[in-house]
Amino acid sequence: MTASLQPSATIGIVGGGQLGRMIALAAAAYGLKVHVFAPDADSPAFEVAGRRTVAAYDDAAALAAFADSVDVVTYEFENIPRPTAEILAARRPLHPSAAALATTQDRLTEKSFVAELGIPTAPFRAVDDADGLARALAELGQPAVLKTRRFGYDGKGQRMLQAGEAVDPAAVMAELGGQPCILEGFVPFESEVSVVAARTASGGFSAFDPCANEHRDHILARTLVPAPTLGPEAAAEALRIARAIADALDYVGVLAVEMFVVRAADGRTGLVVNEIAPRVHNSGHWTIEGALTSQFAQHVRAICGWPLGDPGRVGGAAVEMLNLVGAEADDWPSYLAEPGAHLHLYGKGEARPGRKMGHVTRLRS
Amino acid sequence: MTASLQPSATIGIVGGGQLGRMIALAAAAYGLKVHVFAPDADSPAFEVAGRRTVAAYDDAAALAAFADSVDVVTYEFENIPRPTAEILAARRPLHPSAAALATTQDRLTEKSFVAELGIPTAPFRAVDDADGLARALAELGQPAVLKTRRFGYDGKGQRMLQAGEAVDPAAVMAELGGQPCILEGFVPFESEVSVVAARTASGGFSAFDPCANEHRDHILARTLVPAPTLGPEAAAEALRIARAIADALDYVGVLAVEMFVVRAADGRTGLVVNEIAPRVHNSGHWTIEGALTSQFAQHVRAICGWPLGDPGRVGGAAVEMLNLVGAEADDWPSYLAEPGAHLHLYGKGEARPGRKMGHVTRLRS
Repeated sequence: MTASLQPSATIGIVGGGQLGRMIALAAAAYGLKVHVFAPDADSPAFEVAGRRTVAAYDDAAALAAFADSVDVVTYEFENIPRPTAEILAARRPLHPSAAALATTQDRLTEKSFVAELGIPTAPFRAVDDADGLARALAELGQPAVLKTRRFGYDGKGQRMLQAGEAVDPAAVMAELGGQPCILEGFVPFESEVSVVAARTASGGFSAFDPCANEHRDHILARTLVPAPTLGPEAAAEALRIARAIADALDYVGVLAVEMFVVRAADGRTGLVVNEIAPRVHNSGHWTIEGALTSQFAQHVRAICGWPLGDPGRVGGAAVEMLNLVGAEADDWPSYLAEPGAHLHLYGKGEARPGRKMGHVTRLRS
Repeated sequence: MTASLQPSATIGIVGGGQLGRMIALAAAAYGLKVHVFAPDADSPAFEVAGRRTVAAYDDAAALAAFADSVDVVTYEFENIPRPTAEILAARRPLHPSAAALATTQDRLTEKSFVAELGIPTAPFRAVDDADGLARALAELGQPAVLKTRRFGYDGKGQRMLQAGEAVDPAAVMAELGGQPCILEGFVPFESEVSVVAARTASGGFSAFDPCANEHRDHILARTLVPAPTLGPEAAAEALRIARAIADALDYVGVLAVEMFVVRAADGRTGLVVNEIAPRVHNSGHWTIEGALTSQFAQHVRAICGWPLGDPGRVGGAAVEMLNLVGAEADDWPSYLAEPGAHLHLYGKGEARPGRKMGHVTRLRS
């Protein structure tokens, strides 16, 4: 159990990207102090944090000093090495927990965990080597997607194996660096949705409305709320799934559950869990202006042991969130001039292709 | 003229209190960098700024280095010494300008300026010494308020002279430190309202809806929008007054114009300008959640040479803002738990009596 923190407390954030930056901004609105730990001196989150540690994620002494300086530790990305999480958790409450992190940062562990809850996932097989890939392909068929078990995001660390494609298992394994992998059978989905939700240490749970997500080059391009492809029944089922996952992880903080929307043989809508993100999530950025409590404020509330805020949509409006990826951010003046559009930029230096530079939120009342 | 800044620019903020802090948070949402200059190492705004200078407001070398490190300079309070403003303005665009500051930081200059625009003010007289006070009292009568010309805020630096009170002019002048003063005739007002508005260097103007303000012990306690005491005609007149003042000052940034609502002999509503604040203002805090653009974002837009944002109320909701002054901030848990209430705390250490510790905003749709 986490004791409830005072607003004079300091939150430690591991990771210095835009998610850490927006957590820090939400914490500041509550009067909380923030200490950011990140290896890159140029980290966007440093610009809004009262304290900064520039050190590697495996620098045990720096991690210990960081933990000792704060009252609670959280993180903005799931690829935190296990020893790092353990050093932090030994000294301060770590939310979400090292166990939740271990489950969700490995695609095989994560899919097995979800499947054991009786929640649908894509069919999957563990793949440790070329022989294993050949066996798994024989069982699941093609199309299928081979993914590294760890350290994948935004389409990195994965390889689509098309229907009919002649696959050389050894070559494909080498392409992914010979790492332990998971082969996932292709799910013929109609759309992708996600549920961003929060859970407290005492079991309190609060979900934002499910949103529909459109990707471009494996990167989130647009989020719509409410999700046009979900009826009320499927939306309720999506929330039920998110809650079951959060409860089973004994989760504290905000998490996102990405799901595929599929059409069953009887014409009914089904949901297949694709991925769990143990953190605030790009598909929840619409909540900054679109919800009565933002996902970032909600995360801060959860990790501080505070009651969760109202997740309702502001004025019941439909909301659209556009990511500004790479050079798309050059269009900032037009978004700034658009009445009612909310422009967010992350303060990153160079607009490299594929780099998330900002986002825009539009409320449609 | 100010060139339009890029989002990679750095804003310099003079003053480290909650207003500077909230300007910094708004700047961060646009990706801008922030450098805060303040004399107190404990300044709340330092916690959310990428760069900080701890130095006195008369430290010319520190001011010059600060100005050289930023692209534009603004400030969060009007009691900036004139030489300080001049050092800054000689090196970088200063918004609002040193001239606007000079006009508004002296109550006599300010009232004369407003009166010359043909806008009603309380009757006033300059008072330089005890003889002057006696003369002014003979002309304006009692009740009246004696105020120092400079450095007053939240009721500091003023003395009410009640009807029938036997006034010893020398003693009263001594009470206010023998400083140059202004005597203001009492205005029998029904309520107090303010207009928070923004103006750009090219003459763009945008005002938030006028709000009604309730004070306790001379400190703002509550703001309501729309102002219940203003009909549409008086509200339009309030905006016209604010625009005339902003235009006459050739103002760049957000300003607040405080007005008394009076009842004329014919029963019509009249407006009397009480004070101009050349900065973001406590009575505009409701705009963070209540308006499509916050006063802080609007100020950042104006000083960056960007187009002003939509000042409309979110969902057309009525909004209430409560200040948390001194020990009132101890009630933070109840506001945090109140559905739909937005709690803001400023990260100040000690909740001294009269100190503004935070605020709460409620939208009533």
